[in-house]
Amino acid sequence: MTSDRLSTIRLFLTDVDGCLTDGGMYYSESGDELKRFCVYDGMGMVLLQKAGIPCGILTSETTDIVLHRARKLNLEYLFMGVGRQKDQTPVAYYHPAYGEKEQLPFMSKTDACQMICKQLGISLDEVCYVGDDINDAELLGKVGYAACPATAMDSIKAIEGIRILKKGGGEGAIRELCDLILQTR
Amino acid sequence: MTSDRLSTIRLFLTDVDGCLTDGGMYYSESGDELKRFCVYDGMGMVLLQKAGIPCGILTSETTDIVLHRARKLNLEYLFMGVGRQKDQTPVAYYHPAYGEKEQLPFMSKTDACQMICKQLGISLDEVCYVGDDINDAELLGKVGYAACPATAMDSIKAIEGIRILKKGGGEGAIRELCDLILQTR
Amino acid sequence: MTSDRLSTIRLFLTDVDGCLTDGGMYYSESGDELKRFCVYDGMGMVLLQKAGIPCGILTSETTDIVLHRARKLNLEYLFMGVGRQKDQTPVAYYHPAYGEKEQLPFMSKTDACQMICKQLGISLDEVCYVGDDINDAELLGKVGYAACPATAMDSIKAIEGIRILKKGGGEGAIRELCDLILQTR
Amino acid sequence: MTSDRLSTIRLFLTDVDGCLTDGGMYYSESGDELKRFCVYDGMGMVLLQKAGIPCGILTSETTDIVLHRARKLNLEYLFMGVGRQKDQTPVAYYHPAYGEKEQLPFMSKTDACQMICKQLGISLDEVCYVGDDINDAELLGKVGYAACPATAMDSIKAIEGIRILKKGGGEGAIRELCDLILQTR
Repeated sequence: MTSDRLSTIRLFLTDVDGCLTDGGMYYSESGDELKRFCVYDGMGMVLLQKAGIPCGILTSETTDIVLHRARKLNLEYLFMGVGRQKDQTPVAYYHPAYGEKEQLPFMSKTDACQMICKQLGISLDEVCYVGDDINDAELLGKVGYAACPATAMDSIKAIEGIRILKKGGGEGAIRELCDLILQTR
Repeated sequence: MTSDRLSTIRLFLTDVDGCLTDGGMYYSESGDELKRFCVYDGMGMVLLQKAGIPCGILTSETTDIVLHRARKLNLEYLFMGVGRQKDQTPVAYYHPAYGEKEQLPFMSKTDACQMICKQLGISLDEVCYVGDDINDAELLGKVGYAACPATAMDSIKAIEGIRILKKGGGEGAIRELCDLILQTR
Repeated sequence: MTSDRLSTIRLFLTDVDGCLTDGGMYYSESGDELKRFCVYDGMGMVLLQKAGIPCGILTSETTDIVLHRARKLNLEYLFMGVGRQKDQTPVAYYHPAYGEKEQLPFMSKTDACQMICKQLGISLDEVCYVGDDINDAELLGKVGYAACPATAMDSIKAIEGIRILKKGGGEGAIRELCDLILQTR
Repeated sequence: MTSDRLSTIRLFLTDVDGCLTDGGMYYSESGDELKRFCVYDGMGMVLLQKAGIPCGILTSETTDIVLHRARKLNLEYLFMGVGRQKDQTPVAYYHPAYGEKEQLPFMSKTDACQMICKQLGISLDEVCYVGDDINDAELLGKVGYAACPATAMDSIKAIEGIRILKKGGGEGAIRELCDLILQTR
């Protein structure tokens, strides 16, 4: 996976916990839940979108937290509940930039990525995906450019050809990668 | 305590503050309280459960925060208010995976652990317990495999034969240990 | 930009995310949002004000979070929604120390800074501004004393003559700079 | 200030922001505010109290956050709004362990400390106080044992004879000191 690959990226997708966050999950006594995102990552995806590269999120969780963040950044794609095999959870598919929402049957992260590729008329080779844990491994092995934060699990860092970013999840790893992509334009 | 012990573990128990969290306790002006858990630890316990090792939490605190987290992870055991000697606080015993709840008389962490062992028909030698402070010392001295996060109190790290994990509480120490256990299967 | 410049500063302005915070943006399930400020930075701006140097905030975000913080510190100036070019967002201009508020047409951070300078009868040369990302670059290039936290984006750290503070955003970088200014009095 | 002094301590007092916390102040969009305390510090003060050393908090802030924390730990003394000279703010004096509350006229941290000493019939020489910023300097210069977290402001670390703890505020600095005191008993 050379940096040449970066210049041909036409879709940017990322996982949430451990990628857009440092893996922290805040639970409150009153029943609320929080995640900590990073302003630099948000700016990175805004810049990618300005450069014509649609951005999206694929997460196995289903929380309004992620929906709030996706709407704030006006992301093109958001898939929640992806790949929860145990109960074949249906997937919530949002198009935050356009306000659309759809309920889809169970699918894996690879399925979701391929569905977006089909919509955009691009191949998996033109996708950049960021993941950090075992449920990201399959898709990381199939996209044109796979990357992970410095804080990813060892088994993910060991994926052949994966780009291990210098920054950790929630500390600007996503921005670091966005800047690398933008430098190739 | 050799790594052989890890291969015979049949029950995984952990303390909360300083083990599943970095010891941070967030208090709000409006009276709410929060704790920060780690997505990697959650995945670790989910993987242990898939491998047939029941998981549980023993904590001296009594907060809905921990209950929310235990339910999310579908943990087999949750004991809250354990070992608060001062007022011989009764203990709340939950079975989050099955929705059951019971109020029990005062008991220590060791008592709670032994009660679970009896239910499962196993011995303390087959238990892995993670603790970080003086109220965990007794039980850590009795289980088959005792471990603590890198950020544990010095007196805990000094327990003979204890495994001092590389990661700190709330930073993935629990996952690190779960992965060690899974590697022995 | 020598330290002589610091002794002639008559207005202190800073960005929020990444400067007064570490860039973290907390989103909650219930729709709330949080930022983490630093007590040392607050004390720094209080000390500057006592020394006769008015302080203010210029941010592209529009959140009550920042308004709460500005009111707590009794800041002289607060501009929110500054420089959001896409939709030429109008700017909210607060005078937290005096309770005033005004809605202004779209303006850049440089425009906002010049508006304050005009009010105070000072020049851009007498302004100290702290920023950390590309939307701060223009103003950082125009003020008398430009500074950034240690955690700022590389393109900002590369601005000629900028002072790169030792501390990161939200860790006391602002206080560090306030102390440097106060030492010249 | 030798460690002999530690063996004669009969009252333990600490500041809040930067001592019991890392200086972080979380503000929410809905108007709530949070602070992050550390479980180890709480246990430290509980252990001191068991050893017969009353504990208390002196803070210039007035927030229910601190009151919640003081009640949880059953602290003997809590003074809020101490030393806010600007408007000679009255001070709220709580006795969380006994449920009492009183409104007192403006007083400095030194005044508050002396008031407690009088109640207990002890001298300032028998007090241990932890502070981290300039509004703590006066009292730190008068007590028998002055200490600060590793993360305190430089001007505080420079106080003659002060004990600079290894840990930072909110990371267990208070517990570190409590353990040092307990080791002398």
